[in-house]
Amino acid sequence: MNRNDGRKNNELRKVKMTRDYLLHPNGSVLIEMGNTKVICTAMIEEKVPPFLRNTGQGWITAEYSMLPASTITRKRREATKGKLEGRTQEIKRLIGRSLRSVVDLDKLGERTIWVDCDVIQADGGTRTASITGAFVAVADALNFLKEEGQIDDIPLKSFISAISVGIVENEKLLDLCYIEDSNAHVDMNIVMTDKGEIVEIQGTGEQAPFNRVDLNELLDLAEKGNKELIEMQKDILNGITKGE
Amino acid sequence: MNRNDGRKNNELRKVKMTRDYLLHPNGSVLIEMGNTKVICTAMIEEKVPPFLRNTGQGWITAEYSMLPASTITRKRREATKGKLEGRTQEIKRLIGRSLRSVVDLDKLGERTIWVDCDVIQADGGTRTASITGAFVAVADALNFLKEEGQIDDIPLKSFISAISVGIVENEKLLDLCYIEDSNAHVDMNIVMTDKGEIVEIQGTGEQAPFNRVDLNELLDLAEKGNKELIEMQKDILNGITKGE
Amino acid sequence: MNRNDGRKNNELRKVKMTRDYLLHPNGSVLIEMGNTKVICTAMIEEKVPPFLRNTGQGWITAEYSMLPASTITRKRREATKGKLEGRTQEIKRLIGRSLRSVVDLDKLGERTIWVDCDVIQADGGTRTASITGAFVAVADALNFLKEEGQIDDIPLKSFISAISVGIVENEKLLDLCYIEDSNAHVDMNIVMTDKGEIVEIQGTGEQAPFNRVDLNELLDLAEKGNKELIEMQKDILNGITKGE
Amino acid sequence: MNRNDGRKNNELRKVKMTRDYLLHPNGSVLIEMGNTKVICTAMIEEKVPPFLRNTGQGWITAEYSMLPASTITRKRREATKGKLEGRTQEIKRLIGRSLRSVVDLDKLGERTIWVDCDVIQADGGTRTASITGAFVAVADALNFLKEEGQIDDIPLKSFISAISVGIVENEKLLDLCYIEDSNAHVDMNIVMTDKGEIVEIQGTGEQAPFNRVDLNELLDLAEKGNKELIEMQKDILNGITKGE
Amino acid sequence: MNRNDGRKNNELRKVKMTRDYLLHPNGSVLIEMGNTKVICTAMIEEKVPPFLRNTGQGWITAEYSMLPASTITRKRREATKGKLEGRTQEIKRLIGRSLRSVVDLDKLGERTIWVDCDVIQADGGTRTASITGAFVAVADALNFLKEEGQIDDIPLKSFISAISVGIVENEKLLDLCYIEDSNAHVDMNIVMTDKGEIVEIQGTGEQAPFNRVDLNELLDLAEKGNKELIEMQKDILNGITKGE
Amino acid sequence: MNRNDGRKNNELRKVKMTRDYLLHPNGSVLIEMGNTKVICTAMIEEKVPPFLRNTGQGWITAEYSMLPASTITRKRREATKGKLEGRTQEIKRLIGRSLRSVVDLDKLGERTIWVDCDVIQADGGTRTASITGAFVAVADALNFLKEEGQIDDIPLKSFISAISVGIVENEKLLDLCYIEDSNAHVDMNIVMTDKGEIVEIQGTGEQAPFNRVDLNELLDLAEKGNKELIEMQKDILNGITKGE
Repeated sequence: MNRNDGRKNNELRKVKMTRDYLLHPNGSVLIEMGNTKVICTAMIEEKVPPFLRNTGQGWITAEYSMLPASTITRKRREATKGKLEGRTQEIKRLIGRSLRSVVDLDKLGERTIWVDCDVIQADGGTRTASITGAFVAVADALNFLKEEGQIDDIPLKSFISAISVGIVENEKLLDLCYIEDSNAHVDMNIVMTDKGEIVEIQGTGEQAPFNRVDLNELLDLAEKGNKELIEMQKDILNGITKGE
Repeated sequence: MNRNDGRKNNELRKVKMTRDYLLHPNGSVLIEMGNTKVICTAMIEEKVPPFLRNTGQGWITAEYSMLPASTITRKRREATKGKLEGRTQEIKRLIGRSLRSVVDLDKLGERTIWVDCDVIQADGGTRTASITGAFVAVADALNFLKEEGQIDDIPLKSFISAISVGIVENEKLLDLCYIEDSNAHVDMNIVMTDKGEIVEIQGTGEQAPFNRVDLNELLDLAEKGNKELIEMQKDILNGITKGE
Repeated sequence: MNRNDGRKNNELRKVKMTRDYLLHPNGSVLIEMGNTKVICTAMIEEKVPPFLRNTGQGWITAEYSMLPASTITRKRREATKGKLEGRTQEIKRLIGRSLRSVVDLDKLGERTIWVDCDVIQADGGTRTASITGAFVAVADALNFLKEEGQIDDIPLKSFISAISVGIVENEKLLDLCYIEDSNAHVDMNIVMTDKGEIVEIQGTGEQAPFNRVDLNELLDLAEKGNKELIEMQKDILNGITKGE
Repeated sequence: MNRNDGRKNNELRKVKMTRDYLLHPNGSVLIEMGNTKVICTAMIEEKVPPFLRNTGQGWITAEYSMLPASTITRKRREATKGKLEGRTQEIKRLIGRSLRSVVDLDKLGERTIWVDCDVIQADGGTRTASITGAFVAVADALNFLKEEGQIDDIPLKSFISAISVGIVENEKLLDLCYIEDSNAHVDMNIVMTDKGEIVEIQGTGEQAPFNRVDLNELLDLAEKGNKELIEMQKDILNGITKGE
Repeated sequence: MNRNDGRKNNELRKVKMTRDYLLHPNGSVLIEMGNTKVICTAMIEEKVPPFLRNTGQGWITAEYSMLPASTITRKRREATKGKLEGRTQEIKRLIGRSLRSVVDLDKLGERTIWVDCDVIQADGGTRTASITGAFVAVADALNFLKEEGQIDDIPLKSFISAISVGIVENEKLLDLCYIEDSNAHVDMNIVMTDKGEIVEIQGTGEQAPFNRVDLNELLDLAEKGNKELIEMQKDILNGITKGE
Repeated sequence: MNRNDGRKNNELRKVKMTRDYLLHPNGSVLIEMGNTKVICTAMIEEKVPPFLRNTGQGWITAEYSMLPASTITRKRREATKGKLEGRTQEIKRLIGRSLRSVVDLDKLGERTIWVDCDVIQADGGTRTASITGAFVAVADALNFLKEEGQIDDIPLKSFISAISVGIVENEKLLDLCYIEDSNAHVDMNIVMTDKGEIVEIQGTGEQAPFNRVDLNELLDLAEKGNKELIEMQKDILNGITKGE
């Protein structure tokens, strides 16, 4: 099989992260993975949700949205529908959980980091791009706190990034674009640390189940992709943090 | 570590499935896994969602809910809040996707099977119990269609069941109850077919990431648990279907 | 007229109350009246609604719901619709009001008893079965408070139960099942105490008005039915309370 | 006991009905009962709800609302809250059911009469005033249909009106104003036809249960009150209809 | 062009304001402008919105609604739809902003004046009639505060009223009724003080843009109309306030 | 007064429009006015709202939103709140009305142009930037229809743009940034055609009313600003349309 953009099966799309993309948030990144473009921001609020009050612990929460014009057919605005779709809820929970897994919330102190991932243009892999970009925005927001003297060290335990893998026409592919994703029999999103450990694995074989050999090959691909993404994060963050 | 109910690490809780639990639905099962109790039902509607009209294809959709008194602290009713929580949305989508993966929707014809999983009592593993019980209810609903002469064969491609596994205090455990689940560093739900293939894998290491060796051990446990559950489904369904 | 289940006009369906049906709530009852089955629970919260704060007075509030598969045609979930139907609101208010009428809220202290009535299977009379079953669950919750030493006595002023009566094809019937209810010209629900006094009467002659002679005969039937129900409550509660 | 406005126990407040109060609806009445003032309107729509399509049968549906400034303390607008209160739902269902009970819906033809009862000023008895006033508005809307030649006869089976009765400090009172209603131990609303038959009875003894002797005395009062109200309706409608 | 009610182009419809129209609010006016009728009320609440707490400053907020039967075709109730229309939001914001512009909120003290404008009958110009009537209701509420000794002076900086103007078939008209409004190419609402200054101007040429000569002629008409309306307000308020 | 960015009172901020900013919509523009950045898109749907079906006429509708991180303090997402704010509703209606005023909807044919304006970064003037940018996106969408042969000519009657003007510390200013807008006593948004005609004027003197001399000076400023903006639109659209 030839991929429609000529990539090798184990090749990422062209990735670009623009740091400090916006003026107001404490951290902001425009991440582009091929035609997929997501604005990821991190804003600090000096307040925690009720269940954490007076615990000394902080919180990270994420929201995710797609612009109506980000997709081929206009996507109806959730604000107009008056509620979040199930897919949106799943993705916002996944992003929040992934980021919380690498931040030492005790050291963050009683404050919340609000992460927003807004998809400007969609071509597959928006949730994984969101996590990869949001990690950088969060690192910048933590750096802001450190520079303001509010925290002593940047409480990051590891780097994390995320990538999709899948099986399309019996080929195992890394970083699926939309057309590949639509034809995938197995579709998997994997969030990993810079040590190659798994933070989240979500795989579905709605079209056809998969066996453990398949799973292992997909994990190999994901490991390769995440390694490359974390290299880029380290480059762009330029020593701000090394994880703990 | 000793499990609080004396089970071995690779041991399921006591499982009981009561078929034909309710009068009105086409299939209904009360599934009990230890103290977790879920009513799973399947009802046929001679109609499909708009995106399937005139395609000849059927649909399966699932809903999930917990009774307010199913949990230790009363759970606020989603109908009163006026919206579904993110967790509920995730679970209902997981159940629906899992069941659709083993039904030949073309052979089902233009009708919808509505699956409802209502948790009467919760002690961990409600989503996996829902899938295991709902499979039996769906098989009964399909059998109803066959007996009514609406379909020629029961369009089931495989059996499926689901089970949770996790890492608690460095021990890998099968079928976590609530207290174990609360203390798990890694938490995973795995839906499998009777051929041991994976339909869904959802694993999260919010408390601590895990490596691929851990993942493999967890999959071994899940495989054992799912195998036993599918045996019970086969027993209770008593030859109604063998899958294709 | 012969009733479809062979009962006499003034005869209740088979009634069964299973106490302590669930693990977590302070009181819980599965009540079955013929094919109608309702799980009634009572859970104590150490908090009152804003309008009662610092008054020393407690509160009882009720919620009611039907499982989607409890009815012949699947009932759309109110949580999915995002709001409670008018019928549900009426019933939850009726249950709450009835239970509050027999509890001395001053003696309850500043706490709320949350009553939940979830209809597992519906065959007419779900609201009256809810009241009859919920009374027992509330008595158990009050007994729990007493055993915990939080209150000195069980602050129940009377027993209450509820039953439906109606006029079907000119016959006056006690305890209508669904098919009778659908054909009733007059439909009435009556909540009574163990002294035979009326707590609530709600009668409607949407199909045909009724006169005061009819009303009196219906009340005779209701009195007989409620008397029998309260006997069963007394049996099952086994002296826990006698009312004041 | 002396009533605060000097009325006898069995005396209605001053009643005034202004017919054709508004320009646009097919029937409209401003009903005043003492300080309670309700605008009741009836508008015809040439359409029925889905469950009646192609049955040849018509429908009557009612809505009820209170202006924010109709009450002593400002009542929060339900449109702002985004949902109807339980009380509103109960009342709108009661009004609709009462009016449907006296209209021959087959003869109405496939059209809907929308009844709106908007309380301008509240001093107790707003739901019963709504029914009494709405009956006149509906009669006028039916008369409009007859004059337009859309129906041959006015399909009214009886007149109906409604009134509240209650027990306040052991006195049985007719037509309670707000202050009496707040102090009532028993509170009852009764809808009756011109033949003295009961269409709806809703009685509640939340503060204290009542016996059947009490009930009979309350019904006597209600019968007297409704008789007088129907006389006024007949006067104002001036022979437009006699019922069938 | 002859106006359908024979008015001159620069002539207001017949205006009538009934003060103290309702019993409960602190100020209330029924304003009638031709067939347009609006109940305007003002109620004082001893509380301010969160953003003003402990600032010593008061607030005025407005709500606007149309009765379902106020329009030719029944207008669906926003409480039933569960949300406010965009048009309603625009109007309530306009009314609130206009009234706040002439009240010295510092002198009002930490309290809120709730203004409600409920359209009983609509024939064009309901938003401007609402402002004109609400000003009188607010003046009465402020007078109530003064008479109660809660404030020393009535903190009104000016009188305000509002009127619509527009271009219909190339004629510039004052105070458009519904049929004129429907045919207008340019439609403008102007809120003015007794000094002839502009508080709000909202003009739209959806059907055809307009030039500055047109604008000036429309402003002349609006000035004349507002002058006359403020005269009537002064008459009816009878010296209660002169503005500052 | 010196403006904080050194501009003259009648000077626009630096304006930049990036055409074809996104891949999927039929027209898309990133408009930057100083620090204000808005993505404006136009997507064609071959369908009209119910009130236009079978009229042969088309429709343009607009939606507006701000990214949570577009403002200094994070703006809560309307999709999370479950409803649109009043301000959002006002702006979306204004954008839609303005664009409809210059498109010949009969010549558009039975299709809808969906305009989306998403504010990426906010520094005042987001609604006027939205209109100016959306005009270009709509022109491109119309050009797309023409190139596809679906319409013969581009049915644009004029160019339009929009700008804010205001009075800050007695100075009349063109194109207010956020800090100026916050301190303005008078705030006005003006939509104009390339002939200098007014399509919309919305001016508010909540802090202080203004007279007609002020109004005229503000209109002079707006005319100058809009003229310059339309020049830029003409440049960037490069002869695609001249208006009719």
